[in-house]
Amino acid sequence: MLNFDFDWDLILRQTIQVGGQLIILLIAFLIISPIAKRAISRMIKKSTSHKNVSEARALTLEKLLVNIFSYTLIFVFIVMFFGIINIEIGPLIASAGVVGLAIAFGAQGLVSDIVTGFFILLEKQIDVGDYVTVAGYDGIVEEIGLRTTQIRGFDGTLHFVPNRNISGVSNHSRGNMRALVDIGISYEDNIDEAIGVLKQICDEFANDERFVEGPDVLGVQAFGSSDVVLRILGKTENMAQWSAERDLRKRIKEEFDANNIEIPYPHQVNITKKG
Amino acid sequence: MLNFDFDWDLILRQTIQVGGQLIILLIAFLIISPIAKRAISRMIKKSTSHKNVSEARALTLEKLLVNIFSYTLIFVFIVMFFGIINIEIGPLIASAGVVGLAIAFGAQGLVSDIVTGFFILLEKQIDVGDYVTVAGYDGIVEEIGLRTTQIRGFDGTLHFVPNRNISGVSNHSRGNMRALVDIGISYEDNIDEAIGVLKQICDEFANDERFVEGPDVLGVQAFGSSDVVLRILGKTENMAQWSAERDLRKRIKEEFDANNIEIPYPHQVNITKKG
Amino acid sequence: MLNFDFDWDLILRQTIQVGGQLIILLIAFLIISPIAKRAISRMIKKSTSHKNVSEARALTLEKLLVNIFSYTLIFVFIVMFFGIINIEIGPLIASAGVVGLAIAFGAQGLVSDIVTGFFILLEKQIDVGDYVTVAGYDGIVEEIGLRTTQIRGFDGTLHFVPNRNISGVSNHSRGNMRALVDIGISYEDNIDEAIGVLKQICDEFANDERFVEGPDVLGVQAFGSSDVVLRILGKTENMAQWSAERDLRKRIKEEFDANNIEIPYPHQVNITKKG
Amino acid sequence: MLNFDFDWDLILRQTIQVGGQLIILLIAFLIISPIAKRAISRMIKKSTSHKNVSEARALTLEKLLVNIFSYTLIFVFIVMFFGIINIEIGPLIASAGVVGLAIAFGAQGLVSDIVTGFFILLEKQIDVGDYVTVAGYDGIVEEIGLRTTQIRGFDGTLHFVPNRNISGVSNHSRGNMRALVDIGISYEDNIDEAIGVLKQICDEFANDERFVEGPDVLGVQAFGSSDVVLRILGKTENMAQWSAERDLRKRIKEEFDANNIEIPYPHQVNITKKG
Amino acid sequence: MLNFDFDWDLILRQTIQVGGQLIILLIAFLIISPIAKRAISRMIKKSTSHKNVSEARALTLEKLLVNIFSYTLIFVFIVMFFGIINIEIGPLIASAGVVGLAIAFGAQGLVSDIVTGFFILLEKQIDVGDYVTVAGYDGIVEEIGLRTTQIRGFDGTLHFVPNRNISGVSNHSRGNMRALVDIGISYEDNIDEAIGVLKQICDEFANDERFVEGPDVLGVQAFGSSDVVLRILGKTENMAQWSAERDLRKRIKEEFDANNIEIPYPHQVNITKKG
Amino acid sequence: MLNFDFDWDLILRQTIQVGGQLIILLIAFLIISPIAKRAISRMIKKSTSHKNVSEARALTLEKLLVNIFSYTLIFVFIVMFFGIINIEIGPLIASAGVVGLAIAFGAQGLVSDIVTGFFILLEKQIDVGDYVTVAGYDGIVEEIGLRTTQIRGFDGTLHFVPNRNISGVSNHSRGNMRALVDIGISYEDNIDEAIGVLKQICDEFANDERFVEGPDVLGVQAFGSSDVVLRILGKTENMAQWSAERDLRKRIKEEFDANNIEIPYPHQVNITKKG
Amino acid sequence: MLNFDFDWDLILRQTIQVGGQLIILLIAFLIISPIAKRAISRMIKKSTSHKNVSEARALTLEKLLVNIFSYTLIFVFIVMFFGIINIEIGPLIASAGVVGLAIAFGAQGLVSDIVTGFFILLEKQIDVGDYVTVAGYDGIVEEIGLRTTQIRGFDGTLHFVPNRNISGVSNHSRGNMRALVDIGISYEDNIDEAIGVLKQICDEFANDERFVEGPDVLGVQAFGSSDVVLRILGKTENMAQWSAERDLRKRIKEEFDANNIEIPYPHQVNITKKG
Repeated sequence: MLNFDFDWDLILRQTIQVGGQLIILLIAFLIISPIAKRAISRMIKKSTSHKNVSEARALTLEKLLVNIFSYTLIFVFIVMFFGIINIEIGPLIASAGVVGLAIAFGAQGLVSDIVTGFFILLEKQIDVGDYVTVAGYDGIVEEIGLRTTQIRGFDGTLHFVPNRNISGVSNHSRGNMRALVDIGISYEDNIDEAIGVLKQICDEFANDERFVEGPDVLGVQAFGSSDVVLRILGKTENMAQWSAERDLRKRIKEEFDANNIEIPYPHQVNITKKG
Repeated sequence: MLNFDFDWDLILRQTIQVGGQLIILLIAFLIISPIAKRAISRMIKKSTSHKNVSEARALTLEKLLVNIFSYTLIFVFIVMFFGIINIEIGPLIASAGVVGLAIAFGAQGLVSDIVTGFFILLEKQIDVGDYVTVAGYDGIVEEIGLRTTQIRGFDGTLHFVPNRNISGVSNHSRGNMRALVDIGISYEDNIDEAIGVLKQICDEFANDERFVEGPDVLGVQAFGSSDVVLRILGKTENMAQWSAERDLRKRIKEEFDANNIEIPYPHQVNITKKG
Repeated sequence: MLNFDFDWDLILRQTIQVGGQLIILLIAFLIISPIAKRAISRMIKKSTSHKNVSEARALTLEKLLVNIFSYTLIFVFIVMFFGIINIEIGPLIASAGVVGLAIAFGAQGLVSDIVTGFFILLEKQIDVGDYVTVAGYDGIVEEIGLRTTQIRGFDGTLHFVPNRNISGVSNHSRGNMRALVDIGISYEDNIDEAIGVLKQICDEFANDERFVEGPDVLGVQAFGSSDVVLRILGKTENMAQWSAERDLRKRIKEEFDANNIEIPYPHQVNITKKG
Repeated sequence: MLNFDFDWDLILRQTIQVGGQLIILLIAFLIISPIAKRAISRMIKKSTSHKNVSEARALTLEKLLVNIFSYTLIFVFIVMFFGIINIEIGPLIASAGVVGLAIAFGAQGLVSDIVTGFFILLEKQIDVGDYVTVAGYDGIVEEIGLRTTQIRGFDGTLHFVPNRNISGVSNHSRGNMRALVDIGISYEDNIDEAIGVLKQICDEFANDERFVEGPDVLGVQAFGSSDVVLRILGKTENMAQWSAERDLRKRIKEEFDANNIEIPYPHQVNITKKG
Repeated sequence: MLNFDFDWDLILRQTIQVGGQLIILLIAFLIISPIAKRAISRMIKKSTSHKNVSEARALTLEKLLVNIFSYTLIFVFIVMFFGIINIEIGPLIASAGVVGLAIAFGAQGLVSDIVTGFFILLEKQIDVGDYVTVAGYDGIVEEIGLRTTQIRGFDGTLHFVPNRNISGVSNHSRGNMRALVDIGISYEDNIDEAIGVLKQICDEFANDERFVEGPDVLGVQAFGSSDVVLRILGKTENMAQWSAERDLRKRIKEEFDANNIEIPYPHQVNITKKG
Repeated sequence: MLNFDFDWDLILRQTIQVGGQLIILLIAFLIISPIAKRAISRMIKKSTSHKNVSEARALTLEKLLVNIFSYTLIFVFIVMFFGIINIEIGPLIASAGVVGLAIAFGAQGLVSDIVTGFFILLEKQIDVGDYVTVAGYDGIVEEIGLRTTQIRGFDGTLHFVPNRNISGVSNHSRGNMRALVDIGISYEDNIDEAIGVLKQICDEFANDERFVEGPDVLGVQAFGSSDVVLRILGKTENMAQWSAERDLRKRIKEEFDANNIEIPYPHQVNITKKG
Repeated sequence: MLNFDFDWDLILRQTIQVGGQLIILLIAFLIISPIAKRAISRMIKKSTSHKNVSEARALTLEKLLVNIFSYTLIFVFIVMFFGIINIEIGPLIASAGVVGLAIAFGAQGLVSDIVTGFFILLEKQIDVGDYVTVAGYDGIVEEIGLRTTQIRGFDGTLHFVPNRNISGVSNHSRGNMRALVDIGISYEDNIDEAIGVLKQICDEFANDERFVEGPDVLGVQAFGSSDVVLRILGKTENMAQWSAERDLRKRIKEEFDANNIEIPYPHQVNITKKG
């Protein structure tokens, strides 16, 4: 005959034991979770406070870290839960190794995006509105995300750049910019005279509020094939460099015309032979 | 003599135990499956709602996630099922490691395609009909798939671009576009006069409905080898930039002709020596 | 003395047990195999039906999937078989890890070929006879294989392209093609007059059956160093674009000659100085 | 006192058991080996028969597969042998993991060579004596090996190309080749007249046995800076394209001279200004 | 009836045992931690002392190493702690393998940043204020971090360079710099005379405090298409090379003018034929 | 009281057992080692005999293989030895996984060097004294090592090329070399006459012992912008191609001068307009 | 009541056993360590003795190997020690797999640096003071480290090159260097006469102590568009090639002037047409 005299005693005791473990596990997580979250908050605040990072950005970073932490916690909780009720979920995941490997290879870019995005935000490398060059794209930053950064190109195009491709950030909106004009004069012209005229123009522009430093005449930068190249260098307010350079060029042309200093065309010496 | 007195009692009890486990497993999956699917739906709706994503697209994303979830669930179910009836399928899969590794390496591109495709859809980086530049291909988007994006090139070619190759999306259909004309004038011409003529043309075009902003004359952009380059810049409706630029060029040529301002040919100074 | 009293009873019972397991295994496989194959057939048919894929192609895909499935099944059967007769073949395969890793690295290209080839066939990216550009090779597709695609170059060369190298397919045989002619006129010529002549030619060609759309004169495309560039654009039947462009060019030359509009040679302004 | 009363009975029985297993193993291998080898032979024959592959090549492929199979069998035999006499060789190999990993990384190229070489042979992509372009090397194939392909460059150099570097094969010896001559005529010449002369030359060459198709005059291919470019296109016997092109060029020059059609030098319009 | 007569004796003894192990563990860590930290301090001091590394930098390196050490210690402590109270956390981590692999691939860049950054600091390859070329970026170093190096470009742009991209550091602020001027003279001029003039100029500049060595005339560097190129070479104080070169160029031009030595324009021999 | 009555009987028997295993192990290795070494010798001899490989080279290959075999054997011996005395060294090595992985990644280049070097030697791709192009370096081979190949560049530089970088070997010392001279004649010259003169020169050189084949006049290779290009092609002794080409060029110039055939300068048609 | 009657006998015996194992372990290491170190010393001495490697360098290599060996020994000792006292540290390390993997990927560059650096030192590819080209950097070697090589560029820049980037070493300080001068003469000049003059100059320089071989006139190297190029080639002492070439050029110019041999300017044939 079949024996249904289960060992109720053992079953009960095991149930109690398992239940107890589960309760301890639950309590442990209820304690760990808020503490860890507060720790993350404090860490982010500390890291960002002395870098003048906006509160919105700090919030983004905090949210990201808290999310990652929460998912990890939930994952750990689930595995432990199944472990206590004696279903090993670990090997199950390991079983999925082949598929997992393919996914890991394919998804690494995503992780790389987030890691890079995290540091771009944390180190405040770019701000919305900055004029930057990243991953070969030039333009104004429209949005900085954890996965993608959106850049409005000079021609109106909107570029979506996955953060992993940002191997170096060139931020053109951090400080004064250089204004540089190279101007060629004829080999026949007197260099000192030309430099004199340029110096005079530089003095004019020194009072221009766009210029923070200079402009100054540096001297003979190069011997071109048909001209002697002189260089003018200055420092301007951010984003004022192009208009400053344009105005400088216009003034130089006018003054050179007035002083009969030639900006020479390409020259060629022709020696005539009979065919 | 052979003993066929099997321990029927033990067999029955084990059968009951195994059956019970299987029933619990089945019930668990029947509960988890609809809940998870509803959760995915809600998540997708939330993610896409404030981005103005079309319902069709949201559906694609939802279907993808539900599919992935279903396959994972079925996989887990099968492994657990075999585990309960005491056939470890995990090691079996692990055994296939060598082949699996090769597959993983080879198939990572596929995963990468889908991951990238998923985010292109989710973040709405491109729409069907957009004029984009991706992975070196220029053209109008004809179809956005999870694995491949189809782009109709300007010359009529249909490009199939695996999503993994889309390392950055340049979307030319998001907002106003720049119209830019560089025009060279002779070194002998008066810059102020030429700028005056250009300003007048710009004023004409300012009323053109294609122009959203400008056009404006920026000034002396560069000293060319034979010309002084002036730049005109404006902002136009999307896709109207080319016709706007063409009309601007035609007007400038006409006005310059009328005002005797020369668009110069390459110049060369010839110095003659005897051979 | 040696004891050869084997426990025949135990041996027999084990044999029965093992035999039973083997029979169950065999039956399971006999049931799974045809069901799965029919499922694959149905799946392929469903995927390809609405894409107008030829039956031959669908057959190729089906054969591939059935093959992969069969080999996997045989592999699983063998491992399970040895497992039942208590020879663990899993560790054996794992033992071969070092060699296997090398093979995996080396063979990933092969897997990658097949995965890419599969999708080229499934998504019908190219057909035999299409004029395509893949992996830097231009030409007519001669054969599409799971591992290699054969392309007949314009100069007669037969290119064998491993599918893994096909990172993007440019199919020039899907729809109408663009005909584009850029023509430079002299800076001295009247733009309106030239455009008039071109428009008249375009009207002629509009009736040409090769043209599906246009051709139209777009306007002043660019200021060249010695010419004003005008652009004509149209859409033609596939593969008719080149002859259409050639005939357009011939007509333009003839009409320009008749109307005294110059297609200018490079110009240069010479300023003579004494050496 | 020491007890040397070994349990001879047990030892003998174990010996018999082990011996039995070894004998079964040996027999299994003796049966599997010839069957598998014959299967490989048949497979190779079937794969290569309809591709007109030479017997020598089929032999090479068969030998390779049989070798790989033999080494694998021997490896399996050794591991199983040691397993039966209770020495686990698996972990031993696994122990060598670090070294093995380095070897695997380093040797993957070798595997890749052989896999690629195998398919080059199987798919008959190149034959000894073919004129091919592979991996940036141009020339006549001198030897096709499983690891390396030897190509004799046009300048006499012997190139050794590891098969892994052959990412695409351009075989110039498979079918007829294109003969193409672009010829520029003066802007002053009459296009119809020039095309007439060219057509007449084409008719001459149509009877040339080197030409399989054409040659034909296509029309105005491009507007050069100083010439109108006409194109002649034909199809010739393999390797006859160059001599055909050379003779075409010579005839064109002669006929153009006879008909006073100019092949123009670069033109330039000089506008003289005073310095 | 249920039996709640727990084996209190066993429980107590186990508790004592576990507690003892925990205490030993704690003590071990309390001993190891300060010793190891002091060892790190000493190691850093020794490594950096003879390289003239600033204290701030040594502190950064020390802090990094101590941090890494602390985190490792805490990690080990936690795993051991759970091991003692019989919860194996190791498999748990291993379970996370798939996710972990993706993270590992994605985060390797971060590790690579820190490793490279560590050695840039330790080997003192760059200092704040140095003029360097790294990863294609030119400029003055503004900040050297473990993850990112900030470089202020010459045009005012701030470049953020992840250290992993610094594959080679070119430090332009370590020692004297070269001043080099190439000057072409006419083929008609006497080389010895020109070299004489240049030598005289070099003698003048030899007293210039910017020059540490030379400048010297090397001789005929090349035959240009229109000039004979002479080279002057010297060594200057760091960062003084450009102004030195500019002044050298100006002096050479003045002296050549004074001595009637020509810096020639491009020459061309014209042979006139009738058309 | 402490019990030191060890079970001497058991200890002795175990000792005997372990000792016996060790002796068997030792004997096995003593037998395997010389047999395997002789097998390697024979294999190398067989592989190299029919390729005319020098004995020194065969010795290098043999030494390498014997070394690798010896180290493997010693490694296996050590692991087995520790296994017998019950110290598992396998896990120890596995423990070092993290460090090992880093080493494996870092050292793969070394393995790759040796594998490539081995095949360069075995396949006799290069010999000391050969003129080769490998990995972008041109020159005479000075030393072929398993890790590095030394090449003496034409300018005297000694290049050390790690074998892994040798992705293809171009050996210029294997057989006759091509001599090729392209010579442009004027568009005004008679092609047949020029070809006649060239043929005559070719006949002269046909007797030159440097020429193995030809030289022959191929015909009109191209229409240059100012000349009609004729091509002469021949085959010379190895390394004699340059002097042969130089002498051919000199003779052509002399004969063309004698026959009044012009090697034309660049031509330009000048059309003069008034400014 | 609690039972504290521990089995002191067992504890003591275990303690003795563990202690004994530890002592054996310690002794083993004390014996292995000095023997292995001496073996390393001897190996290094043998490897470097016949290559004329300085003692300092041999010391560096020895120190590196001894260090690596010591760290490995300590690592093994620690793991074994914990193994004996029954704390498995192996799994602990394995637990750290995810982090470890990231570190392994990130640190592989470091290992690669050291492996490459080791062989650069061992094979004596570069010496301090050599003029080399590595990884795209040109200059004099200032320091060779295991991780980084420091190169002083010609312009004074100090380049820090991680050894892993040194994929090939071009050492310009190993043996005599080539002096090569290409000189163009006019198409009108007599080639034999020019070669005569050049031969005479070569004879002069043959006595120059800088020349080890030649210089010799090779002949007509090429037909330039306006000149016939002659080549002179010689071999000089290391680093004397540039001054030798400069002096050769100066002499050639002087002799050509004296002999009325023209070094021609670019030529052009002008055909005049009316516009």
